[in-house]
Amino acid sequence: MDNQIYSKDELYSMEKQRIFPGTASEAAFLLGGIGTGNVSIGARGELRDWEIFNTPGKGVSLHYSFFSLWAKEEGKEPVCKVLESKLHPPFSKSHGFHSGAVSGLPRFETSALRGEYPIAWVDLKDDSMPVEVTLETFTPMIPLNPDDSGIPCAIFNYRVKNKTDRKIDVSIAGSLLNGSGFSGYDQFENLKQESFKGSKNEFRNDDGFSGLYMYSTSLPENDLKSGNMSLVTTSKQVTYKATWNNEGWWDGIHDMWDDFSSDGKFDAQTSTCAIKDAGQKVGSLGVYETLNPGEEKDFQFILTWYFPNRINGWEQTCCSSGCNCDITQNYYANLFMSSWDAAHYILKNYNRLSKDTYKFHHALFDSSLPHYVIDAAASNMDILRSTTCFRLKNGKFFGYEGCFNKAGCCEGNCTHVWNYEQTLAFLYPTLERDMRVTEFNVETEENGKMEFRTKKLFGSSNNYHPAADGQLGCIIRLYRDWKLSGSNEFLSSVWDNAKKALNYAFTYWDSDGDFVLDSQQHNTYDIEFYGPNSLINSMFYGALKAAAEMAEAMHDSESAEKYRNAHSKGSEKMDKMLWNGEYYSQVIDDVNKYKYQYGEGCLSDQLFGQMTSHLAGLGYILPEEHVKKAVHSIFKYNFFTEFSSHINVQRTYILNDEKGLVLCSWPNGGRPKLPFVYSDEVWTGIEYQVAAHLIFEGFIDEGLTVIKAVRDRHDGIKRNPWNEVECGHHYVRAMASWASIIALSGYKCDLVNGIIEFNPAINKENFSCFFSCGEAWGVFKQKLDKDTGKLVYRVDVLYGKLDGIVVKANGENVNM
Amino acid sequence: MDNQIYSKDELYSMEKQRIFPGTASEAAFLLGGIGTGNVSIGARGELRDWEIFNTPGKGVSLHYSFFSLWAKEEGKEPVCKVLESKLHPPFSKSHGFHSGAVSGLPRFETSALRGEYPIAWVDLKDDSMPVEVTLETFTPMIPLNPDDSGIPCAIFNYRVKNKTDRKIDVSIAGSLLNGSGFSGYDQFENLKQESFKGSKNEFRNDDGFSGLYMYSTSLPENDLKSGNMSLVTTSKQVTYKATWNNEGWWDGIHDMWDDFSSDGKFDAQTSTCAIKDAGQKVGSLGVYETLNPGEEKDFQFILTWYFPNRINGWEQTCCSSGCNCDITQNYYANLFMSSWDAAHYILKNYNRLSKDTYKFHHALFDSSLPHYVIDAAASNMDILRSTTCFRLKNGKFFGYEGCFNKAGCCEGNCTHVWNYEQTLAFLYPTLERDMRVTEFNVETEENGKMEFRTKKLFGSSNNYHPAADGQLGCIIRLYRDWKLSGSNEFLSSVWDNAKKALNYAFTYWDSDGDFVLDSQQHNTYDIEFYGPNSLINSMFYGALKAAAEMAEAMHDSESAEKYRNAHSKGSEKMDKMLWNGEYYSQVIDDVNKYKYQYGEGCLSDQLFGQMTSHLAGLGYILPEEHVKKAVHSIFKYNFFTEFSSHINVQRTYILNDEKGLVLCSWPNGGRPKLPFVYSDEVWTGIEYQVAAHLIFEGFIDEGLTVIKAVRDRHDGIKRNPWNEVECGHHYVRAMASWASIIALSGYKCDLVNGIIEFNPAINKENFSCFFSCGEAWGVFKQKLDKDTGKLVYRVDVLYGKLDGIVVKANGENVNM
Repeated sequence: MDNQIYSKDELYSMEKQRIFPGTASEAAFLLGGIGTGNVSIGARGELRDWEIFNTPGKGVSLHYSFFSLWAKEEGKEPVCKVLESKLHPPFSKSHGFHSGAVSGLPRFETSALRGEYPIAWVDLKDDSMPVEVTLETFTPMIPLNPDDSGIPCAIFNYRVKNKTDRKIDVSIAGSLLNGSGFSGYDQFENLKQESFKGSKNEFRNDDGFSGLYMYSTSLPENDLKSGNMSLVTTSKQVTYKATWNNEGWWDGIHDMWDDFSSDGKFDAQTSTCAIKDAGQKVGSLGVYETLNPGEEKDFQFILTWYFPNRINGWEQTCCSSGCNCDITQNYYANLFMSSWDAAHYILKNYNRLSKDTYKFHHALFDSSLPHYVIDAAASNMDILRSTTCFRLKNGKFFGYEGCFNKAGCCEGNCTHVWNYEQTLAFLYPTLERDMRVTEFNVETEENGKMEFRTKKLFGSSNNYHPAADGQLGCIIRLYRDWKLSGSNEFLSSVWDNAKKALNYAFTYWDSDGDFVLDSQQHNTYDIEFYGPNSLINSMFYGALKAAAEMAEAMHDSESAEKYRNAHSKGSEKMDKMLWNGEYYSQVIDDVNKYKYQYGEGCLSDQLFGQMTSHLAGLGYILPEEHVKKAVHSIFKYNFFTEFSSHINVQRTYILNDEKGLVLCSWPNGGRPKLPFVYSDEVWTGIEYQVAAHLIFEGFIDEGLTVIKAVRDRHDGIKRNPWNEVECGHHYVRAMASWASIIALSGYKCDLVNGIIEFNPAINKENFSCFFSCGEAWGVFKQKLDKDTGKLVYRVDVLYGKLDGIVVKANGENVNM
Repeated sequence: MDNQIYSKDELYSMEKQRIFPGTASEAAFLLGGIGTGNVSIGARGELRDWEIFNTPGKGVSLHYSFFSLWAKEEGKEPVCKVLESKLHPPFSKSHGFHSGAVSGLPRFETSALRGEYPIAWVDLKDDSMPVEVTLETFTPMIPLNPDDSGIPCAIFNYRVKNKTDRKIDVSIAGSLLNGSGFSGYDQFENLKQESFKGSKNEFRNDDGFSGLYMYSTSLPENDLKSGNMSLVTTSKQVTYKATWNNEGWWDGIHDMWDDFSSDGKFDAQTSTCAIKDAGQKVGSLGVYETLNPGEEKDFQFILTWYFPNRINGWEQTCCSSGCNCDITQNYYANLFMSSWDAAHYILKNYNRLSKDTYKFHHALFDSSLPHYVIDAAASNMDILRSTTCFRLKNGKFFGYEGCFNKAGCCEGNCTHVWNYEQTLAFLYPTLERDMRVTEFNVETEENGKMEFRTKKLFGSSNNYHPAADGQLGCIIRLYRDWKLSGSNEFLSSVWDNAKKALNYAFTYWDSDGDFVLDSQQHNTYDIEFYGPNSLINSMFYGALKAAAEMAEAMHDSESAEKYRNAHSKGSEKMDKMLWNGEYYSQVIDDVNKYKYQYGEGCLSDQLFGQMTSHLAGLGYILPEEHVKKAVHSIFKYNFFTEFSSHINVQRTYILNDEKGLVLCSWPNGGRPKLPFVYSDEVWTGIEYQVAAHLIFEGFIDEGLTVIKAVRDRHDGIKRNPWNEVECGHHYVRAMASWASIIALSGYKCDLVNGIIEFNPAINKENFSCFFSCGEAWGVFKQKLDKDTGKLVYRVDVLYGKLDGIVVKANGENVNM
């Protein structure tokens, strides 16, 4: 193997997931559902990045929103600390840490965060404390069930253990700012107070739970800032201060801390004496217990939010006050009337929601795939539940490419970016199919031109040339989704337009009718390729092969024949034109005639259409021998083991001694004066698609090396393990990471014909892996029976049904 | 000594200044003059925090503005790197590092920054490079010469050493964005292009130098964004690309780097083919040399800027486009016609400007004071040259309290904050005296009420109650400035109003005529004290003692008598009322009657008026014994050696295992329910005033301990050594650090009577220290002659004249 940087042991050993110390200041684990926004838990156990207000909010804090613990060991003075570990440098803010960050309060000595999305654990330790605390936190996530994966909530279970040999009285308090009307901060980092006028906190009792309900009495119902939040518990031993004193300065936190730290209980009286209607409203909810020596008890809090109003479009904030922006609601407003209602739903269904979430977690994390492969696939699932994606009241699902710190970017279910992701397709196929419906039935014009960013749906018009990779990729993805669902009804609902979109390529991108696309080809590098190249053409041949089969299913033999013919002739010709003995290059007379080409370069994406074809179960669309060699050449030439001497004047995603796969290299020279604009960059999404392809072609060490390199770069110090960035946070392309699970398990799904297949590529004698299709998900296992020398198979369906589906493993039928 | 955390050796050893490695990411050393704005040099050698556009700009980068080095060892391939060391984590930006940050280009392995304000050195090392590089950088700074300390420039001397035994061709190129019209960045971090329309870069030759002149042909002359920049060199071996290609994407940097890295020269042709008028203009200026084995050569670049227009007031940006903001100019527009003109001035006067700057540097840094004391005093000099301060065309000097990242805050030569600073008074006394003129002759009303923030000067009206500490402090500062200047003319120009301001206290703050101020006293904690307290009263007695002497000088014996009487009676009474045996407390019947009092607390500022009186040469204003005990109690009770268990719900400036002095403590209980709002905070300005006072009272270990603790907290990792923050960056109060130089050298200046005195408190057998007064500055030395057993004195006047001034040391006259 070239570029060997990891030992076999490092690549294949079955280690546990990484643990991040409190110093891993970049680590931030998202809590929140599909289309609900998020709050994150950091490596110190802190709540950070409040993104519950329908906009991204990296770096947005919610003042005075934190958990704290009071403990009194029998016969000793009480102790009281914030349930976070200490802050780490830098400490250089223009005005110090604001009071709202409560940075000056005592904290636990150390913390350790383990995040196995969708569940995270934070251990808090402190020799001076009589207790140890572990927080377990999650938001329900159940594949195939987008509604129950889309609850605007975060569940916090603090498990407290008495370390001493005496009784300890313990209270945990959650404090929370009423965010209804939240308008950010002024330059002093004080909360802008205006829209808090009329905001109210109240303590409520309900069926089996109680807590704080925080809302506004003054904001119009359709105001974008209107909404409510709840912090509840099922505990019966509750203490609370519904509204802190807010008369002036930092009176509220002074009063709250003095009150709570004295006896672990809140005196409701003190808080009511000086509450200004116009000011911010913070409230605290506490739960108290007595722990015997060595005893452990859970303190559970459920945070829910409800900010239902959202602009009906890609904008996230009104262009101006008093504008006529079309306001719609989040999908979750169909499910719940308020945050309190959401809390009610969660608690009524708690066992099911948590059990199914844990089942999913175990199915994924107990697999026999290398830990970093699971980590790559699982951690990037959070993109679906980040502010990159949203879901409107009409049920439709949308996604930016990624997010700025405070806004989505770029708009439009962008076809050439969403081309790479597999996670939604395999976990929430109904939402994925909705994207096909949008693309084909809304955004595709009569002549077959597809707007590559969803615009018509929101009343805008098509106004840019089409993206060849995105448009053709949609055909392959349609095939994948048809096979995953087995639904001919779905296929026929979009088929006419899909055909138009494919046929458009014959005239628009093929200048000479030779089935090798060659004219101006806009693509995912945000520039135009000219002349034949294998990125666009591999997408074309994958689309043709897929469309031929779909046409047959739609009883359209004429089209099927046309597509088979075009695939056969075109791919043969392309292979001849572009194959240079090691990989496929771009054919163009003068590589500098147009800016931003790659010519003789070795493009990492050169066989992207082949990868997606493998993944969809289409098999080879180009000569296997060349495909194998080309994919290996990509690894050989483009995987760099250090970047200190790499010359890149474009955007920088990798530096110093890091390892990764560049988008393009020129091993034989011929680099254009101005190559395509991202050519020297490193994108995790492309690394993952190449890694999966390497595995599909049998280069397993190489594929795993690429994946491990990506995850090593996301170590919590350099980058957030739960946020792979490209043109934005939580970038959609990174969901190509799911493809490695498919490739390593050799999973094929054809519900149209009622067959699913497994063909594990590693750990064949003791293999276990999560699988999913449109009807069910579960775990596939294969184990060598040492007595018989034969493999024994087992399929555990953990959700849904596989009735009537034939399961095969390594070519054999599996007894269900 | 209580709270001993440093050994004698740590406190007193004569070490060199600290060196910050490239990982010290908070370190940023300001370049720029008084009232000119700044660019900073970071610990990696990078240019950062571009603040040249008349607003603070922490975090503001100027795309493509960097230095790079090309070197070709005879017989080898050339190498080319950015003249910075490698970037360090975190790397988590939403869109990666922008092309404009050139983060993907090769850099030197390591760097080491030593900053001895106003001069900084950065060593760049890299085993793979045939050269070593040291950057020396500064902006001229000459005490008593504000004009030559206020040139909008930064001088960069790169010293390159050939490490090999072969000849090396070396080029260094400075690249710079034309900032005329700079309007910041969009969400993608792309430069907003609109106002770059018509911006032009041109190469110019002048008398003995050449370089790039960058200006705009389209912005109106009075536009706030209008201005120009120059990058010049005196080298004759020059290569340049005046304007980079800016046609699209990152073409310009692609072209520039390919061009420069190939042969160390710029091909002027390539750049001219695709320059859009509307786009950003970047240019590069290179200097080339050949170095023999082991040879060192200097490559000098001078950066100047000229953005003369500024709002005539405290605002920094227009409230709206097309508003009628009153535009004035920076003072530097009186001195120079353009940035080119400034470069011309610098180069014509280079020897003098650099020589005087280095003299000052040596006088300060070669002293026998502990390194951290010099560091504390010198590093905070940069506040005067930060965006915290400005100087308008009319010559007047102004200062905020500090700065937000992007705006000044808070406005107004705030008297109660400027009360603490000594640096301006001792280094630029003409500017300091201008502040007295503003306070007394503009901001003081007929009835003696002084607006504590300069407002009337800019046409606003007085609208807030007066600040007792600020207003009374102005009288003591007036005395100090009168003594430093020896100018009765100055005193008489403000005396009438100063008297009104002092007399105001008798009626407004003294409810019962007992000369103990006791009514509502607004103060530097932004709240009101009620009842007698020694913070306000010590300011009062210092002011009375000062005013008595000034009245005599102004032949106003009646007032003098009145003030002496009030001081005598008042201070005696206050001492009786407030002395608790250990320190002075606040007398108030019910400490919770009003919010935000301190009652029985030990206030760090309780003798601030005594400290400023010592500093001004007024001697004791309260019983010496009590003063000494109180100051020691402050250290005993308020200096904490760890903050992990400190409870502070206010702003946080110190945490974990750091050491520092809190504003107040309650060693005897009696803490109010809501003590004054900053009571649990730690401010460097107050630490420095207490430290100086400890030294004045003979508690030298204690004073040094406080100073060292502050500087240890500013270690480049946690905080910027050149930016002490309170309510804003470069906070004025931190200039109390200069007081420790005065205290340690026992320096008294009375030019009214023609005497200056020294009385070193440490290193008496071999003492050396910078001194300054209104007429001159230099070095005072005292050394034990071991033969005679006597001290030998020497005064080197390095700037100005001390003609006719008697110099005394330890009570003896010194032969000049």
